[in-house]
Amino acid sequence: MGKLVIVGTVAFDEIESPFGKTDKILGGAATFIGLAASQFNVDSTIVSIVGDDLPQAYLDLLTSKGIDISGIEIVQGGKTFYWKGKYHNDLNSRDTLVTELNTLADFNPVVPENYKDADIVMLGNLHPMVQMSVINQMAKRPNLIVLDTMNFWMDNALDDLLEVIKHIDVITINDEEARQLTGEYSLVTAAAKIQTMGPKYVVIKKGEHGALLFHDENIFFAPALPLKEVFDPTGAGDTFAGGFVGYLAATDNISFENMKNAVIHGSNLASFSVEKFGTERMETLERDEVNKRLHQFKALTQFDIELK
Amino acid sequence: MGKLVIVGTVAFDEIESPFGKTDKILGGAATFIGLAASQFNVDSTIVSIVGDDLPQAYLDLLTSKGIDISGIEIVQGGKTFYWKGKYHNDLNSRDTLVTELNTLADFNPVVPENYKDADIVMLGNLHPMVQMSVINQMAKRPNLIVLDTMNFWMDNALDDLLEVIKHIDVITINDEEARQLTGEYSLVTAAAKIQTMGPKYVVIKKGEHGALLFHDENIFFAPALPLKEVFDPTGAGDTFAGGFVGYLAATDNISFENMKNAVIHGSNLASFSVEKFGTERMETLERDEVNKRLHQFKALTQFDIELK
Repeated sequence: MGKLVIVGTVAFDEIESPFGKTDKILGGAATFIGLAASQFNVDSTIVSIVGDDLPQAYLDLLTSKGIDISGIEIVQGGKTFYWKGKYHNDLNSRDTLVTELNTLADFNPVVPENYKDADIVMLGNLHPMVQMSVINQMAKRPNLIVLDTMNFWMDNALDDLLEVIKHIDVITINDEEARQLTGEYSLVTAAAKIQTMGPKYVVIKKGEHGALLFHDENIFFAPALPLKEVFDPTGAGDTFAGGFVGYLAATDNISFENMKNAVIHGSNLASFSVEKFGTERMETLERDEVNKRLHQFKALTQFDIELK
Repeated sequence: MGKLVIVGTVAFDEIESPFGKTDKILGGAATFIGLAASQFNVDSTIVSIVGDDLPQAYLDLLTSKGIDISGIEIVQGGKTFYWKGKYHNDLNSRDTLVTELNTLADFNPVVPENYKDADIVMLGNLHPMVQMSVINQMAKRPNLIVLDTMNFWMDNALDDLLEVIKHIDVITINDEEARQLTGEYSLVTAAAKIQTMGPKYVVIKKGEHGALLFHDENIFFAPALPLKEVFDPTGAGDTFAGGFVGYLAATDNISFENMKNAVIHGSNLASFSVEKFGTERMETLERDEVNKRLHQFKALTQFDIELK
């Protein structure tokens, strides 16, 4: 059972989509990553910060999934990070209506002592200096450091971002962000350029069009499962990342071949996450359902051409 | 060796892209389909119409690939169909600058007598009544009728289109067109609806995002090979279709399992087609190169998760 440190937001999300709207519900990168990783046999902790306005039931949910929450700082009298967004009709784009950093503005992550020897560190989307501080706290170099980021940090903290990615092994990033970071339109060229910046593995997320894993000259592609209905894409990328690191930690194997399986597991879990608002689907997801859908992934992608 | 009838345009194309521009060069749906299908062991004929302005060398090229051209009517004093287009920077969209139907305006396709018993008929993008006329000329029901179409016919000849697709087995269509034809955003739902209109198999082409094959509850996905450079997407969809039908004709097996292989072969050939302007890459493509790239497709998509 691999040890996994997850750093990221635990938050309130409020979502409008063509299918309806929510109140303030549980969200945040670390939440989605943690719930996805909990599908595997891992010993994980979430490092985050919240206010005391976050319902205890949300924290209890994480604990019930076997996630250690001793690294979640609860600021008395503080307010939890809050994001409100509205999806457009095609669900491929959204507008951010409200972002309130609240306690996140002063987040100084503290990795619990007994997780400083973790095998894998998953740095969810946060200020690159916060991500760097977590790396610096580890007692030994983790076997694998995975980092997620977004265009906001390229626009506002590029130097810090370029510094932290020198120290990581895998970056997960979407297609437009890969292009922005490198100035290259071709994802193959962009991924090659990113590999010269630090990470030896590059995962480019293309939403409903799947995800690409790059390493040296090797490319692997995991499709997104075609679905009749997508309800709420919030957290899909984090769920993907959680499945990716959760599977790698549980199997204790960070070879490229095993990373292929990990991106399939990540895609598989993301296909559930989008079926309901927020974390709802992930909260009740059973391993039987997960295994059943893996068969669909195999049917979707495996073919039998005799190669010459 | 299966017998294949290909109906479609043999044309002049003139292309501008961010990478340069061409003079009038050889193009047309039937041309790309025929060149791709010629990679397989098939006995194919092209049914089309051209003017006597088409260089003899273009016809000789087709003949040199083993394609029968007795069904290409050459109109003395007539002019060949001409299309001029300009690609935008991302190559995913283009403007049509000129369309001159010329001889195509009066195209009455005539299937050569010795191909009226063909195993497979590939109806390239044309007026649906022209496509229907080819079906009606066949002496026996072909094992498989494949039809490609586009939004133009949905806008201008929808009733005729709905009539011809009642008589076919496989439709190839792009994602936006599938949505337009059905009014459904989800491609899964759109494909299910199209299957109630006639074709038992639906291939949805997503350009650089690959292609989906639907049949009943089954879905198969073929990615597009991620490329460092895409030079000219003209003809990629037709090359895909040509690989699809060429492989099926050569293997004489139209099962869903074999169609999976066929869409991989189609994607594989399309990945070459876009590497140079027009038909240039397909003219010199060797089977060794094709086989080598199939290994890349396998590495790109195959994984080894033990299913429970």
